[in-house]
Amino acid sequence: MLDETKITKAIIEESTARFLDSLHVDVAIAGGGPSGLIAAKYLAEQNKKVALFERKLSLGGGMWGGGMMYPTIVVQEEAKPILNEFGIKSKEREGQYTADSIEAVAKLIAGATDAGAKLFNCISVEDVMIRENKINGFVLNWSTVDIAGLHVDPLTIEAKYCIEATGHPLEVCKVVQRKVGKLNTPTGKIEGEKSMWAGKAERLVVENTKEVYPGLYVTGMAANAVFGAPRMGPIFGGMLLSGKKVAEDILARL
Amino acid sequence: MLDETKITKAIIEESTARFLDSLHVDVAIAGGGPSGLIAAKYLAEQNKKVALFERKLSLGGGMWGGGMMYPTIVVQEEAKPILNEFGIKSKEREGQYTADSIEAVAKLIAGATDAGAKLFNCISVEDVMIRENKINGFVLNWSTVDIAGLHVDPLTIEAKYCIEATGHPLEVCKVVQRKVGKLNTPTGKIEGEKSMWAGKAERLVVENTKEVYPGLYVTGMAANAVFGAPRMGPIFGGMLLSGKKVAEDILARL
Amino acid sequence: MLDETKITKAIIEESTARFLDSLHVDVAIAGGGPSGLIAAKYLAEQNKKVALFERKLSLGGGMWGGGMMYPTIVVQEEAKPILNEFGIKSKEREGQYTADSIEAVAKLIAGATDAGAKLFNCISVEDVMIRENKINGFVLNWSTVDIAGLHVDPLTIEAKYCIEATGHPLEVCKVVQRKVGKLNTPTGKIEGEKSMWAGKAERLVVENTKEVYPGLYVTGMAANAVFGAPRMGPIFGGMLLSGKKVAEDILARL
Amino acid sequence: MLDETKITKAIIEESTARFLDSLHVDVAIAGGGPSGLIAAKYLAEQNKKVALFERKLSLGGGMWGGGMMYPTIVVQEEAKPILNEFGIKSKEREGQYTADSIEAVAKLIAGATDAGAKLFNCISVEDVMIRENKINGFVLNWSTVDIAGLHVDPLTIEAKYCIEATGHPLEVCKVVQRKVGKLNTPTGKIEGEKSMWAGKAERLVVENTKEVYPGLYVTGMAANAVFGAPRMGPIFGGMLLSGKKVAEDILARL
Amino acid sequence: MLDETKITKAIIEESTARFLDSLHVDVAIAGGGPSGLIAAKYLAEQNKKVALFERKLSLGGGMWGGGMMYPTIVVQEEAKPILNEFGIKSKEREGQYTADSIEAVAKLIAGATDAGAKLFNCISVEDVMIRENKINGFVLNWSTVDIAGLHVDPLTIEAKYCIEATGHPLEVCKVVQRKVGKLNTPTGKIEGEKSMWAGKAERLVVENTKEVYPGLYVTGMAANAVFGAPRMGPIFGGMLLSGKKVAEDILARL
Amino acid sequence: MLDETKITKAIIEESTARFLDSLHVDVAIAGGGPSGLIAAKYLAEQNKKVALFERKLSLGGGMWGGGMMYPTIVVQEEAKPILNEFGIKSKEREGQYTADSIEAVAKLIAGATDAGAKLFNCISVEDVMIRENKINGFVLNWSTVDIAGLHVDPLTIEAKYCIEATGHPLEVCKVVQRKVGKLNTPTGKIEGEKSMWAGKAERLVVENTKEVYPGLYVTGMAANAVFGAPRMGPIFGGMLLSGKKVAEDILARL
Amino acid sequence: MLDETKITKAIIEESTARFLDSLHVDVAIAGGGPSGLIAAKYLAEQNKKVALFERKLSLGGGMWGGGMMYPTIVVQEEAKPILNEFGIKSKEREGQYTADSIEAVAKLIAGATDAGAKLFNCISVEDVMIRENKINGFVLNWSTVDIAGLHVDPLTIEAKYCIEATGHPLEVCKVVQRKVGKLNTPTGKIEGEKSMWAGKAERLVVENTKEVYPGLYVTGMAANAVFGAPRMGPIFGGMLLSGKKVAEDILARL
Amino acid sequence: MLDETKITKAIIEESTARFLDSLHVDVAIAGGGPSGLIAAKYLAEQNKKVALFERKLSLGGGMWGGGMMYPTIVVQEEAKPILNEFGIKSKEREGQYTADSIEAVAKLIAGATDAGAKLFNCISVEDVMIRENKINGFVLNWSTVDIAGLHVDPLTIEAKYCIEATGHPLEVCKVVQRKVGKLNTPTGKIEGEKSMWAGKAERLVVENTKEVYPGLYVTGMAANAVFGAPRMGPIFGGMLLSGKKVAEDILARL
Repeated sequence: MLDETKITKAIIEESTARFLDSLHVDVAIAGGGPSGLIAAKYLAEQNKKVALFERKLSLGGGMWGGGMMYPTIVVQEEAKPILNEFGIKSKEREGQYTADSIEAVAKLIAGATDAGAKLFNCISVEDVMIRENKINGFVLNWSTVDIAGLHVDPLTIEAKYCIEATGHPLEVCKVVQRKVGKLNTPTGKIEGEKSMWAGKAERLVVENTKEVYPGLYVTGMAANAVFGAPRMGPIFGGMLLSGKKVAEDILARL
Repeated sequence: MLDETKITKAIIEESTARFLDSLHVDVAIAGGGPSGLIAAKYLAEQNKKVALFERKLSLGGGMWGGGMMYPTIVVQEEAKPILNEFGIKSKEREGQYTADSIEAVAKLIAGATDAGAKLFNCISVEDVMIRENKINGFVLNWSTVDIAGLHVDPLTIEAKYCIEATGHPLEVCKVVQRKVGKLNTPTGKIEGEKSMWAGKAERLVVENTKEVYPGLYVTGMAANAVFGAPRMGPIFGGMLLSGKKVAEDILARL
Repeated sequence: MLDETKITKAIIEESTARFLDSLHVDVAIAGGGPSGLIAAKYLAEQNKKVALFERKLSLGGGMWGGGMMYPTIVVQEEAKPILNEFGIKSKEREGQYTADSIEAVAKLIAGATDAGAKLFNCISVEDVMIRENKINGFVLNWSTVDIAGLHVDPLTIEAKYCIEATGHPLEVCKVVQRKVGKLNTPTGKIEGEKSMWAGKAERLVVENTKEVYPGLYVTGMAANAVFGAPRMGPIFGGMLLSGKKVAEDILARL
Repeated sequence: MLDETKITKAIIEESTARFLDSLHVDVAIAGGGPSGLIAAKYLAEQNKKVALFERKLSLGGGMWGGGMMYPTIVVQEEAKPILNEFGIKSKEREGQYTADSIEAVAKLIAGATDAGAKLFNCISVEDVMIRENKINGFVLNWSTVDIAGLHVDPLTIEAKYCIEATGHPLEVCKVVQRKVGKLNTPTGKIEGEKSMWAGKAERLVVENTKEVYPGLYVTGMAANAVFGAPRMGPIFGGMLLSGKKVAEDILARL
Repeated sequence: MLDETKITKAIIEESTARFLDSLHVDVAIAGGGPSGLIAAKYLAEQNKKVALFERKLSLGGGMWGGGMMYPTIVVQEEAKPILNEFGIKSKEREGQYTADSIEAVAKLIAGATDAGAKLFNCISVEDVMIRENKINGFVLNWSTVDIAGLHVDPLTIEAKYCIEATGHPLEVCKVVQRKVGKLNTPTGKIEGEKSMWAGKAERLVVENTKEVYPGLYVTGMAANAVFGAPRMGPIFGGMLLSGKKVAEDILARL
Repeated sequence: MLDETKITKAIIEESTARFLDSLHVDVAIAGGGPSGLIAAKYLAEQNKKVALFERKLSLGGGMWGGGMMYPTIVVQEEAKPILNEFGIKSKEREGQYTADSIEAVAKLIAGATDAGAKLFNCISVEDVMIRENKINGFVLNWSTVDIAGLHVDPLTIEAKYCIEATGHPLEVCKVVQRKVGKLNTPTGKIEGEKSMWAGKAERLVVENTKEVYPGLYVTGMAANAVFGAPRMGPIFGGMLLSGKKVAEDILARL
Repeated sequence: MLDETKITKAIIEESTARFLDSLHVDVAIAGGGPSGLIAAKYLAEQNKKVALFERKLSLGGGMWGGGMMYPTIVVQEEAKPILNEFGIKSKEREGQYTADSIEAVAKLIAGATDAGAKLFNCISVEDVMIRENKINGFVLNWSTVDIAGLHVDPLTIEAKYCIEATGHPLEVCKVVQRKVGKLNTPTGKIEGEKSMWAGKAERLVVENTKEVYPGLYVTGMAANAVFGAPRMGPIFGGMLLSGKKVAEDILARL
Repeated sequence: MLDETKITKAIIEESTARFLDSLHVDVAIAGGGPSGLIAAKYLAEQNKKVALFERKLSLGGGMWGGGMMYPTIVVQEEAKPILNEFGIKSKEREGQYTADSIEAVAKLIAGATDAGAKLFNCISVEDVMIRENKINGFVLNWSTVDIAGLHVDPLTIEAKYCIEATGHPLEVCKVVQRKVGKLNTPTGKIEGEKSMWAGKAERLVVENTKEVYPGLYVTGMAANAVFGAPRMGPIFGGMLLSGKKVAEDILARL
């Protein structure tokens, strides 16, 4: 056997084993941005089986670009401990903390994998699995299949709880609204993100982090978008706290 | 001042200060893939001022996708110590080591930033600065300007040494060949990557890691591409060792 | 330091200082067409702090192309004094005035900058900042980020009053209608531009130049579009008068 | 375990086993058009291990559309026995045979799989594996990765002999010419397809079916294109005979 | 006459005769995926005149890619006899059967043509023909005309019964809903596919296989999509049984 | 003066004179397909001033391609005299007449110009001019401005009566519905074209040829689309008769 | 049979008969612009069998748009008789003649069809048929197949003489240069159009109208482009005379 | 006549008169960036007839965006007087001058029009007019025609001298090199821009401002690109001086 064949075999076998091992998990997360990664870490740390699926080739979502491509993020005091837990360096500035957005993304990913979460990229969640009135997992496909416009059927992953962490696009909630039934919101529908009000949004994003349909939790920007709260602007404290809260809420039920 | 204004101010001031502080560095690196990140770490660790520029929103280059989107990489024994230095978990398998490609990317980025390198995203190196026969820095632009097809002039960064780490595209070497002069290759031109021969390629990538034009070093896949060596396949040992070697060679001259 | 580094430093520092100085203004204007530029001039002339944001690389909006790319504009007698104040040459013709559309654009821009307004290009207003029931500023991003389809968070600018001057696209009003609340129109919604009736439209555009939501004024073609008046055709008198009126109305409240 | 999980597991395990079993084959074929499929059948029938890779989602290549989307093909007397062996119905017409192009494609695929060849779709051959002067296999990637413009490394398949059957595009030969060395043609390069001369082309396509570089055979339209013979037009006899001949030539050496 | 002219003549005459012979059929089928092909076979086997139109160059629809491009399909015990009738090899696995998705497609097409159905590719059904309250045929065009964005009028095919087998896109039913009248569904409209529940979906797809408007039957995934049942996932038993059932129902009326 | 300058001058002066002469006409027609051209001929023949505007570079609309790119049209007996009047050759076939679609287009254009109508290409009708409750002309722009996505203001043409002859797209009626007011249809809105029923459609297209809003007539396929009648298929008799009728109706009022 | 079926049958049968009748002609012309149409007319008038193929849906080529979309053409005195023969109205102006470009196109097409030439649209000439050293016909495909990027084989048409009349693109000559052999030009290759010199170009276009390869004549702008003469500008006299000359030269040999 | 008709008439007549008046000028300039505008001003100021053609809707070229979208430009001491002559405000900074890039563009345009130059937008120079060995003018087309991909012939403008001021694209020189003959450069060809060296480039751009082919001068970035000098970076002094020099050189010959 040539060296290349040995390498190829190793890659396919390891990756396939990891994917097959994740067909049946405690928690499945859609979206690899900050809140999804934080939820993954805190859940996996408690020995829960966690699989996270990101549509893009790279994880990290909207945090890479800081604000307007200025690669810095700002975090409030309350969320500073989370930065510390992930080893993200920060600098105090008038009661808030600034950090390098690129470093922050890298360490959120590293923290989640070190805790034992399984992260998958290039995979989109195109639908959910449903039994009577509970969501039981995700319907997955390669995101490249979608980009290429090919007609190829999806596969599935089964989970005790699912988390919507796709941010503004609300990819899972939109499917649920269209194909499953009423969401746990005032109107039973996606309320839609409101204009920017950083202070109010930061507070509400934690409040709105909850079960939005039996079996499906919502976290991060998706939480405010589905419950009709304002958008947050380039401040990430609420996002981090929301990721932690969704983990705690689900841990309490597992 | 509203909260949002405070946040905006913090982000612009911190990021601009970091960028202005990088206008004049010891080493400028084009390309945020594995070899560029490794070079950045080993140079910065020795207190050299390092700035790395990546065209995409996310760093990590071709390592995110493992092989054919199976998110695993393989590394040979010789490069295992580098994995360890970055804290990347690996698994022994018939004398080689496999690792999760997503974790690997994240920890390469984290390692480089922790060592003190400055990493910038969304910026492309569109040309070099030249004085007589030495390259003295990069000519930069937002990569979004290029995508949008706008006609906007670039700015510059000055460096004692530059590193071409853009992989297959050879973005810097192509400019040098077209606009500056003869490269330090057998024909004076880019020789072009050869077909795959993993074993030979892995050995040659380290040999080919050298100064390709006064002031410009080449590392990683770019090294084999410019010197006409075979491509490597989804094994990353040579890539990692090449990143370390380019750092050592430049350190010896600084 | 090389010459290029000096130049780069000068450009970044000057531009950043100008932008930071504009984070907190009296009036923020969305859209760099004729009415926005005229409003900018008359406000800045009275020593108000004004920042104008244009999505395109060039300012001037729909005036560059005259009518059907015939580069001439027509202005009625009532608006002739505004042409004069900006130094735009014109020619009498049956009681109206014709001018070179390219000259007109250039002098509107020159007039606004000479009056002290700060003009920014390549920046789009993607949302507004809100506090209870008042709009307090714009949420900004590079328009190239949008064109490139990147997921990058915006930054913000704070203003005592905001002006919607984006013309037909009504970029700000559409956001307000969707994410904030009822507009000050008969139906509470955008009424939509009606078919062409130059005479009526010219009269109405000045009438419709008013506050459309607390903190947000509307001017130029946007005024007729939001209040359901006819479109104007390639005559610019009403546009110019509307730009002047919005400035006067806001000056009265500052 | 939910039903869907059982199905997902079955699909991944079966497919992965089939792919891993094909990492090391007697013959690897690039291109799933008529000549590749016929070669696959005659090789597999003799108990050779054969893997065929097609870039598109569907196999069959240029035969689906007959001529100008009139879904009929024409085959000469000499190739009639091959139609029979695959069970393709045909109709005599002035010494030639016409068949339904859609039926023909389906039965070529069915024949190859029934003989035991492994057919893979959505996979492109982007390079070859080389050892000194022999081609030892293909470098593969998902074709959707290429369409999506992602930077993802390939994997490999090892083969005693490789067949270029990609037709006009000559995807493998172009790589060999650029990255490996001289082809076994008069000029050492791809000679390029000549204009149409059906009679001559039909004769030459069988003659040109041979080893074009150590380890690499060429068949079908690719044979004429690489050796500078005329193109054939919508007649498929030579194509079928060429597919059979390449199988026989390789069988003689295995 | 040159050889090429003879070939050209043969192709045009044979294909045109086949098309003209199909202008007036017992059953016209829109969509060349599994359920359409199976319906075609069982109808043609009973000597009914059948014409099937597929928009793509290749027939087979969503079955080529198995699940997530893993080229395997799964079929339940009840549908195993259909696999057998088409000669598709399968493997038992925990009470279900797996098959190679590429082989399966090829043999479904081969089976339909062997039974005497006429299959046409590159043709889209853009509308229906209507007389009072019955659908009497399809309005056809080259799908390349649509892709090229040309304004070219369609032609028509007349049929006693029509079958909608276009799957998720519901191309025929959408036209009927918009341009003809109420469908035979609870709301009179397309109910829309629900989220995945393989077991329930498999049962319902057979139930939902029925006449949805006078003269128009629905089969396969289209049946569940129009009647608001769940989607099936990468299991094809129900699809196959639905194709058989629609044939039987129509045969009962012919 | 060089020859080229003389030619350039001639072209601009002649064309501009023709356009200026058409700013003020009896009848303005939107759309250069068969019914528009026929209306133009019969109106111009009676010495009415007629200007017709076509968005494409070429006139002729959907008639060029016959049916499915088979370049033949069919016309019923009643419309045969119109073919004759334009000098279009035809062939009797079972009580209908076939003609070459390319010849037919050319002669419709030639007939309209010979009668004195002014035809303009590359110009789109993007809006109407309105006074109280009557449409008084078209708002025009170069269609290339629209394709290029430029923001350039339109110009106008004034007419006693306007004709909508844009076929399926209903470009004028859609603007009127959105921006002007109620149409003269059962619902006051565009009813939308129904599925194909050639016989009924042919009869109705003449009936539906009438004033749809004060000052605006509708003819050809647009007539059936706006009044909710079936589409016609590749038969052109009704189209031709509709073009003649709209001319007669308007002549009666001029 | 429904009416629609009768119409469909008529269209397919008439068109197919016309196409089959043209498989074997005296002269085949590539390109439906002015010189191709004129050649078609003068050849067909002498009872030669002529088939002309145009890639676009509409014939007329570059004449529709006059100069810079000003729809007027200019013709010199020498070519005035040709305008007359086609019945194109013109106006004297300083020794030259102006005509409406739209009328001119229509009447050139009408003239060619009236003379008996068969004109086909939506068909591109993608190659030639060759026997030893003579071109014997064209290799044709639907141009929509090319636009749609489908892989579909072409068909052919046989001709005693072929004419390249595709203008600037030189579609046939480029194929001949690449795939057949040396052209009858000074360098044996396409010389390339030179910059504009109307007077010289007008004279040369007639001189350059000749056989460029055995069996292939060149006419119109293509003649100057292949022989390296200047381009003509928006004057059409030489074009018309060239079309007439190519007809006369071929007539002399038939 | 309606108001709109009066406006339309005024716009067309004024613009057409201006264009016709420019068919025959002293100097024609291709490109509306800084050096073209400056040349236009200094030529027109001396009562020369000047026409400038810009491909885009807006003039100003690469100056709008400053450097990397930071809207500031830098100018050296030697060019400061030019800023003053145009009334562009500037600020001293370490021996150089910074200015607002948006203001600078506007005032360059205003200065050129005030001097009497005629500026045209949306027009591209696609070729030159040639007589023996002298360039005598430009071949023009709407740039929207090019963007729309339409085949429409150009018109022309005659000039005693022409200026290439299109910057990096060298639109005129590329045509001359390909279609006319040898340029006045060391190799007779375009030498190509070299990498950045601001100091050297600034000096050379003035030296390279000269006649590059009889009748054609080159200025601005185009001068360095054609003569193989380095690029300049975001400093505009040389650009401004080059524009002034080309005017002076041509004035000396008029």
